[in-house]
Amino acid sequence: MAGVDRLDAIRKPSLDPLCRLLSSELERVNQLIVQRMQSPVALIPQLAGHIVAGGGKRLRPMLTLGCARLCGYRGGRHIALAAAVEFIHTATLLHDDVVDASDLRRGRDTANAVWGNKPPILVGDFLFSRSFELMVADGSLRILEILSHASSVIAEGEVLQLMTANDTRTSEAAYLAVIQAKTAELFAAASRIGRNLGIAFQLVDDMLDFSAHATELGKSIGNDFRDGKVTLPVLVAFARGDKGERAFWRRTIEEQDQRAGDLQRAIELLERHGALAETLSRARSYAATAIDGLSIFRDGIERRALIDAAGFATERGF
Amino acid sequence: MAGVDRLDAIRKPSLDPLCRLLSSELERVNQLIVQRMQSPVALIPQLAGHIVAGGGKRLRPMLTLGCARLCGYRGGRHIALAAAVEFIHTATLLHDDVVDASDLRRGRDTANAVWGNKPPILVGDFLFSRSFELMVADGSLRILEILSHASSVIAEGEVLQLMTANDTRTSEAAYLAVIQAKTAELFAAASRIGRNLGIAFQLVDDMLDFSAHATELGKSIGNDFRDGKVTLPVLVAFARGDKGERAFWRRTIEEQDQRAGDLQRAIELLERHGALAETLSRARSYAATAIDGLSIFRDGIERRALIDAAGFATERGF
Repeated sequence: MAGVDRLDAIRKPSLDPLCRLLSSELERVNQLIVQRMQSPVALIPQLAGHIVAGGGKRLRPMLTLGCARLCGYRGGRHIALAAAVEFIHTATLLHDDVVDASDLRRGRDTANAVWGNKPPILVGDFLFSRSFELMVADGSLRILEILSHASSVIAEGEVLQLMTANDTRTSEAAYLAVIQAKTAELFAAASRIGRNLGIAFQLVDDMLDFSAHATELGKSIGNDFRDGKVTLPVLVAFARGDKGERAFWRRTIEEQDQRAGDLQRAIELLERHGALAETLSRARSYAATAIDGLSIFRDGIERRALIDAAGFATERGF
Repeated sequence: MAGVDRLDAIRKPSLDPLCRLLSSELERVNQLIVQRMQSPVALIPQLAGHIVAGGGKRLRPMLTLGCARLCGYRGGRHIALAAAVEFIHTATLLHDDVVDASDLRRGRDTANAVWGNKPPILVGDFLFSRSFELMVADGSLRILEILSHASSVIAEGEVLQLMTANDTRTSEAAYLAVIQAKTAELFAAASRIGRNLGIAFQLVDDMLDFSAHATELGKSIGNDFRDGKVTLPVLVAFARGDKGERAFWRRTIEEQDQRAGDLQRAIELLERHGALAETLSRARSYAATAIDGLSIFRDGIERRALIDAAGFATERGF
């Protein structure tokens, strides 16, 4: 945590230094993404464009690009590989939003809200295949191995998440297994320092879903609660709650019997038991471990930008 | 067509010779499929096992195995590659059944009928990733190129099919583009003689969906009609129909306003205009072209078994 605390003392960590450092390369990644999502079937670029242009942070491709620079890479292969990573991520978002029946992502209608469930399932498959085409064109079997394995693990994590939903007996170990698989695996594939960062990132995501502050930023909250997802904030509040509170969690999460005011009550219970603070504290530990992993590299603009990005993962409000 | 007619004069073409020829290799493919669909997440092998054990004909892996033997291949790589092809096929079936909201496949409940839509979407993604893991372990970039491209084309074909549904103005060219992409591309990836065979196979599939004879075999019919899919039988009947008949097709297919007895009337119209016979005739042309493609190989048990399998594609009742 020392790294994060030191940074906090100076200013709020931010993605900006990494964005600035990589701006021309990110632009090339974005161009390649737009180019490779084209198809004579007009609905494909329409739908893919909707989500690709939807204001994602491009965290995963930035990790690939940033670590390539950190390691002194001077070639051009990282552009296509960063695009491949983003395509896999985009495909999983399209499928996730169908599975979760989500209407909003980053403040915009989801693809399934606009086009129904059928096109996003198939366009997700298309982007996933395109990702592999990009990797094949790159020609590294080792990279294909890492990303095909990561894709399997992500799908396993998503199924495991379905199975732990609505079950307040879910262990913290099972919860961590879900977020390791569904989020951290692709971060780790995008860059070898990414696994701990991915866990930190998902912990904060799960926290922000209950954060009243997030609503002020125009982010919708309570989606995980509504879906009965058992995330760390819920697990902590459940473990620390009394009999009446556990009955509340069982009714809302297990029996999916949710009434007006339940989300507000859930947030009150989470705050009473310090569940959000606890989740953030764990996220900071993982981010600090990620930052420690950077210590083997020489100090410089790339390393400082990556440290800042890792700090941002836990100190962000969106 | 000469090849098919010659065969017909002798006996009904069948998959049996190819199955017998490849039985020990097919058994190894099946074992590998079962082994590689395992996961610590129990629902994955449960759901995958449901569809894998669901009585598919294993046509695509048989093409890979059969053509490997035809070409005198004596190594062991064709086993994993045949399994990879079948995994891609299975993943698309899982997603197709969700997209089409199908309840039955091969006389059994679909995975979405048993588990709802969410698990089959995610398990499809898992099998798709596993397929690439198998190919990566094999280590041929050329094969990865063929199958990643085929997967993109399949997804494009599925989206194009969505866009042509409910549109009786669909051209035959657009219909052929759909079946080339969604079916023939994977047949072609499974074996280089497969493209024409894949088209023949899908034409017969589209015909059987209206075949009263198929119901006697326990196959459900009318699924495409119910979904408003514009297949060749419908296109032929529409083109040959009078004003009243075209109004019928527009109401049932475009407006999706279907009433009791409509499927029966559709079948009557198809039969009146010879639309099923026309579809079968075209399928036989494609199958004959596939068989002609085998003429460059020496006569032998492998070639005869493949010719028989190609004949089966059009003369089957299921």
